[in-house]
Amino acid sequence: MKRSFGSDNHSGIHERIAVAMLRANTGDEVAYGEDKWTEKAIRKMKDIFGNDAEIFFVFNGTGANTVSIKSMTKSHNAVISAGCAHLNVDECGAPENFCGIKIKTLETADGKITPEMIDPLFHGRHDQHHVQPKVISITQSTEVGTVYTQKEIRKLADFAHKKGLFLHMDGARLANAAAYLKKGLAEISTECGVDVLSFGGTKNGMMIGEAIISMNSETSEQLLFFRKQAMQLSSKMRFISAQFEEILKGELWKELAEHSNKMSKLLESKIQGIPNLEIVYPVQANAIFAKIPKKAIAKLNEKFFFYTWDEDESVVRWMTHWATTESDVLEFAEDIKRILCR
Amino acid sequence: MKRSFGSDNHSGIHERIAVAMLRANTGDEVAYGEDKWTEKAIRKMKDIFGNDAEIFFVFNGTGANTVSIKSMTKSHNAVISAGCAHLNVDECGAPENFCGIKIKTLETADGKITPEMIDPLFHGRHDQHHVQPKVISITQSTEVGTVYTQKEIRKLADFAHKKGLFLHMDGARLANAAAYLKKGLAEISTECGVDVLSFGGTKNGMMIGEAIISMNSETSEQLLFFRKQAMQLSSKMRFISAQFEEILKGELWKELAEHSNKMSKLLESKIQGIPNLEIVYPVQANAIFAKIPKKAIAKLNEKFFFYTWDEDESVVRWMTHWATTESDVLEFAEDIKRILCR
Amino acid sequence: MKRSFGSDNHSGIHERIAVAMLRANTGDEVAYGEDKWTEKAIRKMKDIFGNDAEIFFVFNGTGANTVSIKSMTKSHNAVISAGCAHLNVDECGAPENFCGIKIKTLETADGKITPEMIDPLFHGRHDQHHVQPKVISITQSTEVGTVYTQKEIRKLADFAHKKGLFLHMDGARLANAAAYLKKGLAEISTECGVDVLSFGGTKNGMMIGEAIISMNSETSEQLLFFRKQAMQLSSKMRFISAQFEEILKGELWKELAEHSNKMSKLLESKIQGIPNLEIVYPVQANAIFAKIPKKAIAKLNEKFFFYTWDEDESVVRWMTHWATTESDVLEFAEDIKRILCR
Amino acid sequence: MKRSFGSDNHSGIHERIAVAMLRANTGDEVAYGEDKWTEKAIRKMKDIFGNDAEIFFVFNGTGANTVSIKSMTKSHNAVISAGCAHLNVDECGAPENFCGIKIKTLETADGKITPEMIDPLFHGRHDQHHVQPKVISITQSTEVGTVYTQKEIRKLADFAHKKGLFLHMDGARLANAAAYLKKGLAEISTECGVDVLSFGGTKNGMMIGEAIISMNSETSEQLLFFRKQAMQLSSKMRFISAQFEEILKGELWKELAEHSNKMSKLLESKIQGIPNLEIVYPVQANAIFAKIPKKAIAKLNEKFFFYTWDEDESVVRWMTHWATTESDVLEFAEDIKRILCR
Repeated sequence: MKRSFGSDNHSGIHERIAVAMLRANTGDEVAYGEDKWTEKAIRKMKDIFGNDAEIFFVFNGTGANTVSIKSMTKSHNAVISAGCAHLNVDECGAPENFCGIKIKTLETADGKITPEMIDPLFHGRHDQHHVQPKVISITQSTEVGTVYTQKEIRKLADFAHKKGLFLHMDGARLANAAAYLKKGLAEISTECGVDVLSFGGTKNGMMIGEAIISMNSETSEQLLFFRKQAMQLSSKMRFISAQFEEILKGELWKELAEHSNKMSKLLESKIQGIPNLEIVYPVQANAIFAKIPKKAIAKLNEKFFFYTWDEDESVVRWMTHWATTESDVLEFAEDIKRILCR
Repeated sequence: MKRSFGSDNHSGIHERIAVAMLRANTGDEVAYGEDKWTEKAIRKMKDIFGNDAEIFFVFNGTGANTVSIKSMTKSHNAVISAGCAHLNVDECGAPENFCGIKIKTLETADGKITPEMIDPLFHGRHDQHHVQPKVISITQSTEVGTVYTQKEIRKLADFAHKKGLFLHMDGARLANAAAYLKKGLAEISTECGVDVLSFGGTKNGMMIGEAIISMNSETSEQLLFFRKQAMQLSSKMRFISAQFEEILKGELWKELAEHSNKMSKLLESKIQGIPNLEIVYPVQANAIFAKIPKKAIAKLNEKFFFYTWDEDESVVRWMTHWATTESDVLEFAEDIKRILCR
Repeated sequence: MKRSFGSDNHSGIHERIAVAMLRANTGDEVAYGEDKWTEKAIRKMKDIFGNDAEIFFVFNGTGANTVSIKSMTKSHNAVISAGCAHLNVDECGAPENFCGIKIKTLETADGKITPEMIDPLFHGRHDQHHVQPKVISITQSTEVGTVYTQKEIRKLADFAHKKGLFLHMDGARLANAAAYLKKGLAEISTECGVDVLSFGGTKNGMMIGEAIISMNSETSEQLLFFRKQAMQLSSKMRFISAQFEEILKGELWKELAEHSNKMSKLLESKIQGIPNLEIVYPVQANAIFAKIPKKAIAKLNEKFFFYTWDEDESVVRWMTHWATTESDVLEFAEDIKRILCR
Repeated sequence: MKRSFGSDNHSGIHERIAVAMLRANTGDEVAYGEDKWTEKAIRKMKDIFGNDAEIFFVFNGTGANTVSIKSMTKSHNAVISAGCAHLNVDECGAPENFCGIKIKTLETADGKITPEMIDPLFHGRHDQHHVQPKVISITQSTEVGTVYTQKEIRKLADFAHKKGLFLHMDGARLANAAAYLKKGLAEISTECGVDVLSFGGTKNGMMIGEAIISMNSETSEQLLFFRKQAMQLSSKMRFISAQFEEILKGELWKELAEHSNKMSKLLESKIQGIPNLEIVYPVQANAIFAKIPKKAIAKLNEKFFFYTWDEDESVVRWMTHWATTESDVLEFAEDIKRILCR
């Protein structure tokens, strides 16, 4: 197919990960995570997130987010998130359906929410008629390609904990955020006070696999059951675990995310100053959101695959990933120029 | 680890399938099933199940069963199954939780239910106080290794349809049943009147992947959404699809299932007549259930991995799979003899 | 207690209704609605809403709304409502929890939504990742005391039906709206295209009881089961039915609602021109929303009971009801004047 | 209509209760339970069940049971009950639907379950694949009119608590059980170790109203929200509370239940020895279950209303209630005799 700037999940499997996955294909292993590959992957996860972290591998991001939320809520609770959060927009109501909860959303300028924005939700009548906020969920990097700083996360965590709430992080692109901030995975999540983290592998070179990292000791036993009930328990789990082990080994995750981010910055540098093109969010992780004329979109789509983000505003999203090459970017930038400048 | 007679999902990935899976690792592809590998796999599925069949790939058996049930029920409905059904016992309440429904169970002698057993459930008061049966769910091959004949399935389908119900088949081991009956996959399922089929790949040589085959035209559009809401939509679906394409190619599924069944028959032939050992169900697919003395179980477990099925009755389950070898079986049979005969 | 301008459900039972309710206390009657009182009440409802209307009595407004929504949705659907809708704010997530759905809200100037406001929700990517809108829910009279005209409702119904959606009306205060518009109950709801109506009795003189009026023939059979599963089936239903019969007899509902509305208009006329008091919504049904200084609220609350609607904006809600007297209103207006003018 | 031996909820409202209910009809009162009548009724409840008891009034028995179960479970839990339990059979799946749980049932000889019957449910594999039992639910008096002794309940409570489970009692007919045992309401429920009790009013002379009595301090705060989310929060709650206050005053509940039980014993005494009639359960509370020829059922139904309990076995249920008169019983017994003896 055409080269895709559509999503980082349009990419394939990184070679090292594919090899590692097949290395686990050695005869019989007990199913459902009681195998040695899972043990090793969890060991590696705990080296990063600490021994108190409880690790649960699941199939996909919707599963990771929904089971995470389930572990922190009862059905009369509300989850607070940005309006554009994947949790709110792109999961076909899975969190509401599986957890019975309600999502309360905040409109943001750059995909990021703050304590100041959340605070008014606590005003007014707080009684049995109203769902009770219990979780703040943030996305790192955000849906619009921006990145929360450690300070911003710590402020949110402190605010949440002071109010008796938990802080959840949807880290489907945590690696990209860490690469941008030049920090470790735990440094920009659990060590800032995140209680439960969805840590993504699929978008960063794996075939399949996400991890729930729970620092919330109250619910780790239940998570085991919630994962199964949420249909997220893999029988041949070793093949997911082996991928995670490899991506953590020698910080492969960082290498891939750095490349991915770099490709977005390269694209940004090549398209700056082009007339009729406005980059609408700061380019921090691996996405560029640009406002371009409607008729240019169709033309550009002839040679390259990408999505329109906001039809009304004529904003498109261009994502790079671990396998995007420099020449892909240069060729794409040329095409953009060609079409927008004539 | 020890050779496992614990479950067919203790096996690894068949080489042809692993190769085919990696063959799909060629640059960018659109996610969520809009790729050419998924198109080809669906084409192959339709060659078997017919053009009216709607095909949905999912992650695991719990997902396949639960989303299947969802597509045929509303929350006030009941599903009728054998008491030992995976749906009822081993899915941590996922069908009840996701569909809101109730499972009504029937105790069976051999894992199989019949219209005669179901009929009394329709007696009595049929009013708003009671959940309303809407689906009969059968397992092929059953949890105790037996196989429904085509005639038995047709009778159940006719009964279901006459009563205004649907017939669901949990075909996690459909291949084993087909191999036993020497019939095709559709011949022993949809062509006998099954409305929605969970067709399993993981237990028969795949790494991951199950398929929902829906002949129920009323709900195929909704299935798309239910799959997503059930957290069963894979982003890099091509890697599941490529496995399915391969397992259907040249009837690889049959070759693997025939081998698996043959290993069970071999084991059966080698242990017949051993004192203190009673085979409690007919050996038809790839499982043997044997009653042996409690103390023999621990001894046997020293060298071979398997599960106790019924602690109270001291019944164990021995499963063979596509990768079980003749020498595995012979060595295991020797050990059984050695331990039970002394 | 103090005279209450807190809510119309702070009122008691109208004498005629209390007498009618006890008139049904005559020995044995079959339970769960198969009694002659329910038959008569349903007859009266059908005289108003037509013979195609299916009528289901339930306990409360949350039940009426939630079961109504259930009858029109599957779990992957969305319901569109005003942000201030009772359905969205005051039901502790019951609709999300029981129906599995998501509510998409629109911010309004006056509690009323329009096709123009809804239309943009249909832009963008409409695929399996997103909940699918299926119901538009409006409140008549609205949470801020305004009333949809017949024309406005017809436009919404036409828009909904053109898009393949249903129109639901939360008519907890339908009587007040009808009294304001000087129209019949059906004229301003089902006859304008409302598919399922929650018709309220409790706030207009009854002790307990709401009705679901369904014009949606596809789901009327299921409604019977959904009502039971939603725990909304009354065993001694005759006592709810007898109240409904009475309130419909000789249009008692209209007499009570007219009085209630009149008391609000009286209050409005008496407080107009008071300094530091701003009436923030048109006074059409039986509520006045006024912005007054924060410190005045506490003082006013000493003698009269009412709620602060918006703490941040210092807006209070004053509701009148069928039993509010002219002297209550005059005394309250005096107190408002006394406190705000000094 | 015909005199009914169909159910105790076919009865009307006791005069004292009707009068007390209307006594609460005195002008404005705050809604949702913050009124003085509710305060008084809760006071009376605490006089019986202790100050640690948390009291929540709801609309009906299905609501009381379902919200009770919700307060003790998470969605991966199972509730253990008799197969004939109302919870399992007659609530259209409300507990499964609202709580997400599974009900595991035991077949009984007399409606009563014992630790010995429950114990085997704990055998076998206890892992993430299986729902985890968390509540034992018993019915007092049972669905077949028998009564648990204090000793039986204490044994169940001890067993439950030892296993880390809660004991729930469906006391829709608790008064009848207490009257039979000549004990107080708490003596045969919470004082025997019941953690959460559904205490019924509707079947014993009230118009509407059940109470949840929770001794489970962990969940009392959540119960407030669960009641609302379960659509069980009454706005004009005072009218339910006033009924409860009256039925507890001077132990009116006992007087009514004693009469009801007495009528069943009278009927039993009058029909003993009649040919072709077999009483199939001990007559302890207010129900008689009799096996009579099928053709006699239709004849008896001409003059008296009652239900067939088991069509296959030709067993009918005859219930008496607080308003059943001696002459009703004598006349009914005469008719039974007349029809069965000819």
